[in-house]
Amino acid sequence: MTELPEKPLWLQRAAIVGVGLLGGSVGMSLRRSGVHVVGYARTESGCRSAVQQGAVDEAFCDLATACRQADVVVIASPVDRIASLVDACAATMADDAMITDVGSTKAKIVAGVADLGATVARRFVAAHPIAGSEKTGVANASRTLLDGKAVILTPGHSPDPGFLQRAREFWRQTGGEVIEMTPEEHDRRLAAVSHLPHLMASLLAGSTEPESLPLVGSGWKDMTRVASGDPAMWTAICDHNRDAILDQIDQFRGALDRLRALVAAEETGELRQWLEAAKARKDQAVAARR
Amino acid sequence: MTELPEKPLWLQRAAIVGVGLLGGSVGMSLRRSGVHVVGYARTESGCRSAVQQGAVDEAFCDLATACRQADVVVIASPVDRIASLVDACAATMADDAMITDVGSTKAKIVAGVADLGATVARRFVAAHPIAGSEKTGVANASRTLLDGKAVILTPGHSPDPGFLQRAREFWRQTGGEVIEMTPEEHDRRLAAVSHLPHLMASLLAGSTEPESLPLVGSGWKDMTRVASGDPAMWTAICDHNRDAILDQIDQFRGALDRLRALVAAEETGELRQWLEAAKARKDQAVAARR
Repeated sequence: MTELPEKPLWLQRAAIVGVGLLGGSVGMSLRRSGVHVVGYARTESGCRSAVQQGAVDEAFCDLATACRQADVVVIASPVDRIASLVDACAATMADDAMITDVGSTKAKIVAGVADLGATVARRFVAAHPIAGSEKTGVANASRTLLDGKAVILTPGHSPDPGFLQRAREFWRQTGGEVIEMTPEEHDRRLAAVSHLPHLMASLLAGSTEPESLPLVGSGWKDMTRVASGDPAMWTAICDHNRDAILDQIDQFRGALDRLRALVAAEETGELRQWLEAAKARKDQAVAARR
Repeated sequence: MTELPEKPLWLQRAAIVGVGLLGGSVGMSLRRSGVHVVGYARTESGCRSAVQQGAVDEAFCDLATACRQADVVVIASPVDRIASLVDACAATMADDAMITDVGSTKAKIVAGVADLGATVARRFVAAHPIAGSEKTGVANASRTLLDGKAVILTPGHSPDPGFLQRAREFWRQTGGEVIEMTPEEHDRRLAAVSHLPHLMASLLAGSTEPESLPLVGSGWKDMTRVASGDPAMWTAICDHNRDAILDQIDQFRGALDRLRALVAAEETGELRQWLEAAKARKDQAVAARR
């Protein structure tokens, strides 16, 4: 159980733009500390679900109404819509209110917001909570989803130091553990640990012959779990982070060729060493997250 | 909860040669029906653990003592030792006793047993229960591990029809659902749904930079889970099923090249269709196993 910090005085009201799995979980996590959470959804039924699931205290279909008086606005939309929503929200918010997001890519979003001009860019602190699921929708949201999870802030060059400090405090209040890096480093590392693995899961799932599906075991099931994710969301991620992902695909392909040579060799000593090194890295990851 | 069939009259006593995760689970599953289960382990402490964990009723370090009077002997060793253990066990068993195994590869084992001569081969019915874990050892065994799981029998040309029928009855008694195919079809299909995915999990785990480990999410964790598996066991599997695995690597590499082209294209429509097709296959697998 994550112990939450004391709620900062400035954080009274948060608006969540897009109350799905992740946005809904952010809302639920904040409500534990008594933050008043307002949701924005495109439809009346979306607003109703958000309230009924306990993700927000109230919800509106009008963006300006949702964002007015918020101390923080969290954009929780697909990555290709984040910059334009930052723009739309900024116009409706108080001058001292901070904007953050949950997008899985960062460089293109940060650049898109920089293009909106310094007045908007200085109050935007880009963020990526490493929490999610192949499931979607507020019905799958959880108030503990962010507890103990890394939240990467990629402020870039733009934001005001005061807003950056608020972003740190805000994300700690969700239960997350804040890490900071440049947008470019984020995109390179996430291409390696998230975007490439996602594509490999889809590749394994899509390549499996239907007649072999009754033979799959727990290994196949776990490896392909994320392939159930939303294709539109992942298309946007690939579009946003194309270069880093292509670079990862090329590195993976080179490693695959080296692995093929190890499997082809009659002498299995090197293959075994390779499997042992991979196991060691995996076991190191398990230990690191304890 | 799987409903077990009534125990066949001929099945009173089973011997498990190698009481690890899978062998131990087979023993536990049979004990639910009142089968008397005898274990073989190489060490006294291995024998003690097998009994203490409830995997077997009694255990011996002497193979002949363990197999004597058994109606079935199950070889649950690494794949590269199965054929020689079949040979050793056959010499100690009653003429009407059946031998089966749990190996993850089949063609080389079936060929190895055929080389032992017709007297041994006719009583061996090769089997592969699609159940397992990255964990090892009898401490992780479970009496429900096989419940509802596919157990593939690959009798090949050798076994006596009476022994084949006993093998079907035996594996159903563990809770498994029996499927039959040729050893070659088994190896080709398992290379696709198990052996290649395992190597891809190891490739992803081994390629991850240590500095990126704090950033991994649940997707990476699930995709690399099996990379914690026993390197010696997987080296033996790769050695046994080399040709089918190389064929799968080549197919995967071709598919990876096609995927790269989709990611590289500015127009994202085809990438989205590709992700949707992969999701459909994954969702089909989830539905098939319900």
